[in-house]
Amino acid sequence: MVQINEYYSQLKENYLFSSIARRVENFCALHPQADVIRLGIGDVTQPLTPSVIRALHDAVDEMAVKESFRGYGPEQGYAFLREKIAEIDYRQRGINISAGEIFISDGSKSDTGNIGDILGEDNIVAITNPVYPVYLDSNIMRVGKYTKIVLVSCREENGFLPERPSLHPDVIYLCYPNNPTGTVMSKTQLEWWVRYALDNGSLILFDAAYEAFIRDRKIPRSIFEIDRAEHCAIEFRSFSKNAGFTGLRCSYTVVPKALKARSSVGEISINSLWNRRQSTKFNGTPYIVQKAAEAVYSPEGQAEVRETVTYYMHNADMIRAGLTGKGWKFFGGENSPYIWLKCPGGMDSWTFFDRLLEECHIVGTPGVGFGIRGEGYFRLTAFNSHEKTAEAIERIRGWDESKFFREQ
Amino acid sequence: MVQINEYYSQLKENYLFSSIARRVENFCALHPQADVIRLGIGDVTQPLTPSVIRALHDAVDEMAVKESFRGYGPEQGYAFLREKIAEIDYRQRGINISAGEIFISDGSKSDTGNIGDILGEDNIVAITNPVYPVYLDSNIMRVGKYTKIVLVSCREENGFLPERPSLHPDVIYLCYPNNPTGTVMSKTQLEWWVRYALDNGSLILFDAAYEAFIRDRKIPRSIFEIDRAEHCAIEFRSFSKNAGFTGLRCSYTVVPKALKARSSVGEISINSLWNRRQSTKFNGTPYIVQKAAEAVYSPEGQAEVRETVTYYMHNADMIRAGLTGKGWKFFGGENSPYIWLKCPGGMDSWTFFDRLLEECHIVGTPGVGFGIRGEGYFRLTAFNSHEKTAEAIERIRGWDESKFFREQ
Repeated sequence: MVQINEYYSQLKENYLFSSIARRVENFCALHPQADVIRLGIGDVTQPLTPSVIRALHDAVDEMAVKESFRGYGPEQGYAFLREKIAEIDYRQRGINISAGEIFISDGSKSDTGNIGDILGEDNIVAITNPVYPVYLDSNIMRVGKYTKIVLVSCREENGFLPERPSLHPDVIYLCYPNNPTGTVMSKTQLEWWVRYALDNGSLILFDAAYEAFIRDRKIPRSIFEIDRAEHCAIEFRSFSKNAGFTGLRCSYTVVPKALKARSSVGEISINSLWNRRQSTKFNGTPYIVQKAAEAVYSPEGQAEVRETVTYYMHNADMIRAGLTGKGWKFFGGENSPYIWLKCPGGMDSWTFFDRLLEECHIVGTPGVGFGIRGEGYFRLTAFNSHEKTAEAIERIRGWDESKFFREQ
Repeated sequence: MVQINEYYSQLKENYLFSSIARRVENFCALHPQADVIRLGIGDVTQPLTPSVIRALHDAVDEMAVKESFRGYGPEQGYAFLREKIAEIDYRQRGINISAGEIFISDGSKSDTGNIGDILGEDNIVAITNPVYPVYLDSNIMRVGKYTKIVLVSCREENGFLPERPSLHPDVIYLCYPNNPTGTVMSKTQLEWWVRYALDNGSLILFDAAYEAFIRDRKIPRSIFEIDRAEHCAIEFRSFSKNAGFTGLRCSYTVVPKALKARSSVGEISINSLWNRRQSTKFNGTPYIVQKAAEAVYSPEGQAEVRETVTYYMHNADMIRAGLTGKGWKFFGGENSPYIWLKCPGGMDSWTFFDRLLEECHIVGTPGVGFGIRGEGYFRLTAFNSHEKTAEAIERIRGWDESKFFREQ
């Protein structure tokens, strides 16, 4: 009789954002007149930019004509896009990455979720706490939650940077600028992790989905800015947040050719393994979407991205100013679209979620949804419009939350 | 130190179609003047149809405007598309499938490759031989090739239908119309497999990617035409071949809610498991692509699909007539875009591949690439243009292949 993957029963029943969506849906059904403002899920709200739209229309027209129609593309992505990425995102910033090290895909959620396919089951996997749930859930699905996964605490007293692990993990997930805490890692701190990984033969899975939001030039935007990181790291990047591709779906993963792992048949190239995985279980990102991503690298496209990022970071500034005025403690929002606030009055995350929704009609994300170390915190995002963000801050400013404080 | 998934070393080094592509590339580099006709990979050549193109342009325009912009969509797909599929592909054909049982994705290669994520490692998995390589490779990646995978022979004397398995597999992959042999399964034969699965508690993974090519009305186009199949089967369907979406990427998988599996925590809904997998490791198919797929269900879209299928099946008819005239033995091509020929003169598959490429400048697919039972056979596809297909047949007709026969 068919058996299922028993590790699934160790997962929480629902993916965090699905749970929130349902709770908000229920609230809206009960309060159809409420003007709910969503500062919860990290979804963008600005439309696709003119150069992206033009590229899409042009590519669609190509698909209408036999001579220019494109069927199956390379599973790794088209050379025109891989070359642009290598040149503009890496070589022009002094990082030596080639097109063959770049794999285009339909989203960092897919790639960070699927990367475990090529890893052995005996690895000790270090995951920060709090964390973007996909890293944790995809590893529980693969190896169970009890013996192979080590949660590395990120505490307020350390500015939510991960503690140095007590044992030696083989695989380490790092995400900077961080989701959910909005914190960044300095070059010195990231150098420490690269050195640690090199010394221990560990693999760093570095999620740089939010690199475009870094304003401080001293903060590394790629792990490959660190010397010898190409021997120990894979980097995930996305067009979702900088270019608004959350509904268009395009991202890329950099797997350096210098990256090796030991196996029973000798030293193995991780680039070849990922290539084999993608060739077998993925059929490439739509041609028209890759043409849209290419347009992001045109001079106009680059200017549009800067404008979009500036737009969202203005929201982050508004939120930070609002929370400062309110006297609430918070982190992030300076080089990141996420603001991580400490729930006022010692409220727990879900209580604060419910009260903020009921009293202010604002949706955020309960910190505890990202792990037990997130309990008592709450994530707001800068991805809504100026108008809605200003309105949300206005509502928070006028809210007398103290009536709920446990202490009273 | 990081360890890799050792099962990858049990795979052939390259995915079949990547190997063929490289061999053809080398040939073309050496013979730049050769007019190579590709009847190898199952990729379509006809452009996207007018109603699909219109839907794409309209959806792109929606993405350009803040009010109609769409970010993250439901991981399972938009309701507008799931409803259309349930209604037109199932309910109108008398099959009771609801929208909640349909999961939209970016391709059947992804879904047939990833479905193993939700299955236990102790299942005995039956895979036909010859077979579409993704089923086999994705299972080797997951459980290794030595103990859990049973190859079920499909022999010429049985019309390439699978032998009844000697032991009781827990998971059974079936693909009809078949890739690569072009054969179909009658209702009685499919009923036998459904009964077998129900009696043994097995799960059938039914790949119906080529159902649109069935001309004989007595042949089932969905496994759910068989009584009680919703208790033992998952069905994979694609827009790749009927609507030319190989470069646009859209497919869907039907996981009935009646489908259950036993687990240590009791009976589990497979629909919920797949939902959890997709919610965690996938972020939905692009909105614009789902709008394009929706257009396939308009009356014009349906007429265009019929026209495209007719176009390709005319090629299949040409190939069948040509091979008949040549006196070569072949299968398929009647309810399928694939023709499976026996290599003349007892040639092995790769020898025939090389000779057909060198002498006729035609690319096909060596049968042995689909498994050892495919040795001595060769797959041609009906997906090229009328002109190229006619030209290919003309070249084959004029080819004196007998000079190569081993017997001589």
